[in-house]
Amino acid sequence: MAESTDPVSVSPVADPSAVQSYLKDLHERITAALEALDSGRFRRDSWQRPEGGGGESRVLTEGSIFERAGVSFSHVRGEQMPPSASNLRPEIAGAAFEAMGISLVFHPRSPYAPTTHCNVRFLVATPKSGPPVWWFGGGFDLTPYYPFDEDVLHWHRTARAACEPFGAEVYAKYKQWCDRYFFLPHRNETRGVGGLFFDDLNEGGFARCFALTRSVGDHFLPAFMPIAERRSREPWGERERNFQLYRRGRYVEFNLLYDRGTLFGLQSRGRTESILMSMPPLARWDYDWRPPAGSPEARLYEEFLHPRDFLAELDRGQ
Amino acid sequence: MAESTDPVSVSPVADPSAVQSYLKDLHERITAALEALDSGRFRRDSWQRPEGGGGESRVLTEGSIFERAGVSFSHVRGEQMPPSASNLRPEIAGAAFEAMGISLVFHPRSPYAPTTHCNVRFLVATPKSGPPVWWFGGGFDLTPYYPFDEDVLHWHRTARAACEPFGAEVYAKYKQWCDRYFFLPHRNETRGVGGLFFDDLNEGGFARCFALTRSVGDHFLPAFMPIAERRSREPWGERERNFQLYRRGRYVEFNLLYDRGTLFGLQSRGRTESILMSMPPLARWDYDWRPPAGSPEARLYEEFLHPRDFLAELDRGQ
Repeated sequence: MAESTDPVSVSPVADPSAVQSYLKDLHERITAALEALDSGRFRRDSWQRPEGGGGESRVLTEGSIFERAGVSFSHVRGEQMPPSASNLRPEIAGAAFEAMGISLVFHPRSPYAPTTHCNVRFLVATPKSGPPVWWFGGGFDLTPYYPFDEDVLHWHRTARAACEPFGAEVYAKYKQWCDRYFFLPHRNETRGVGGLFFDDLNEGGFARCFALTRSVGDHFLPAFMPIAERRSREPWGERERNFQLYRRGRYVEFNLLYDRGTLFGLQSRGRTESILMSMPPLARWDYDWRPPAGSPEARLYEEFLHPRDFLAELDRGQ
Repeated sequence: MAESTDPVSVSPVADPSAVQSYLKDLHERITAALEALDSGRFRRDSWQRPEGGGGESRVLTEGSIFERAGVSFSHVRGEQMPPSASNLRPEIAGAAFEAMGISLVFHPRSPYAPTTHCNVRFLVATPKSGPPVWWFGGGFDLTPYYPFDEDVLHWHRTARAACEPFGAEVYAKYKQWCDRYFFLPHRNETRGVGGLFFDDLNEGGFARCFALTRSVGDHFLPAFMPIAERRSREPWGERERNFQLYRRGRYVEFNLLYDRGTLFGLQSRGRTESILMSMPPLARWDYDWRPPAGSPEARLYEEFLHPRDFLAELDRGQ
């Protein structure tokens, strides 16, 4: 039987247990990579959700490189899809659902090292009438405080490499989706320099969608770790620390005002401490603060906090 | 002509300019009271909104008593009532509107002095069909870190006094509304020890509603200032500071996840810096932190962060 191309039907070869195995392995690999770089160790908390399912949250606190790094695996079931999950799919509002994923946010100590977020997820919804619906979602994005062109290039080249086997247009599409998603309308700023974002992916059948999602998950560490490693060696002072704390306030604003994952988690009565692991350990707000003209802080706003085709603009044969 | 008791019609004596005068005078009185206590001075920013109207934001930063104190007057107009303003009034969704109010949040420096919020507002909506609708809203609430029974008593006694001339049931009703409104479901905690909250007030005609709203506005300083003054004299250390910063994280969570005023402001494209003046200057998040058993920090959670009838329970003829 050929794979269905109907976007709201389940491919006959959908294999949730293969997705779960992949996600658990990715969880291990990410944990191991950070522990190889940082003197800190992850605390591991397994939890159950009364409504069904559970997860394991791993948090590294006050490490040598990471002020906080959290990476969670979760696999939950529910009787009613929360509203934040089904905006784009009115036909499954209120359906029973199963959701599994890895979600991480790393807040490095050094203001020269960027904050990063990565998520890969798989959902199956079973409406009261009609067939089940599955889809993948995910991506990764980078939020530098003091951006370096070579880091942004490396980040987006790696993102492009993750997408390349799946079609020439995939990187551009997911890069633009990321720019639109990680945007703060009340600040008229992107959260950072973007990366990849995709959702509602079930085009082309389960095997292709799973392979694409794995490729995104597998490219996260090669995209991020070299940047974290080299920037954590740069010396920094109070000025850079204050700017980092100030910009972390924007991270909080995005997560609590707009982030679908955070709102989905809180609305579906997920484990609050695991969901809010994404919060920075410390953040500041200054009233009406503006970066001094010509400063490195002003460069962040002027050159990086709006959508740009970094690969076309910065990649001059380096 | 008798005042209408139809909750969706405008009283013939509604007088927006009297409300505006009152609000501007209250703005002055609050500013003066803080400057009399604190060595700091308010920065005053007047602003215009492209869609109509404007306001004046006043912010005191790094004062001797207040780490940040912000109090804004605004008077704005818009062609389309934002969704967050009209949940309770589907008949005015999308109506043209006029909104004026005072809103303040004070973040004292001392962890022994509570954070506080007060708001009084007046709205008029003009639906495309049907008569205009006006209503008042407002209240004040207190968010202590290390609560003192005598402060909580003084706070609620003053709140009760503000309501007493308007009926025996008013304090209880607005106190309970406050407990319900300033609640964080994902934490199963109230924001603090409550106070008063009311909205959609137009019962009994304009004169009564305006008088009640004035009484709430006028009782804020007598409720808060004695507490701020005496608690700012208590010595404190790093432990208390860390707990204050941690609990300020909850303040951020409430404001960005649930607060109707914040969401209304951001959705209606208000001045972001004035709306987010309510953010604490510095806040922290600690993963899965719990107060030590028997500690003063545990007492906050156990005795204060759920709805209680403080006047009945604490007021033993003091």
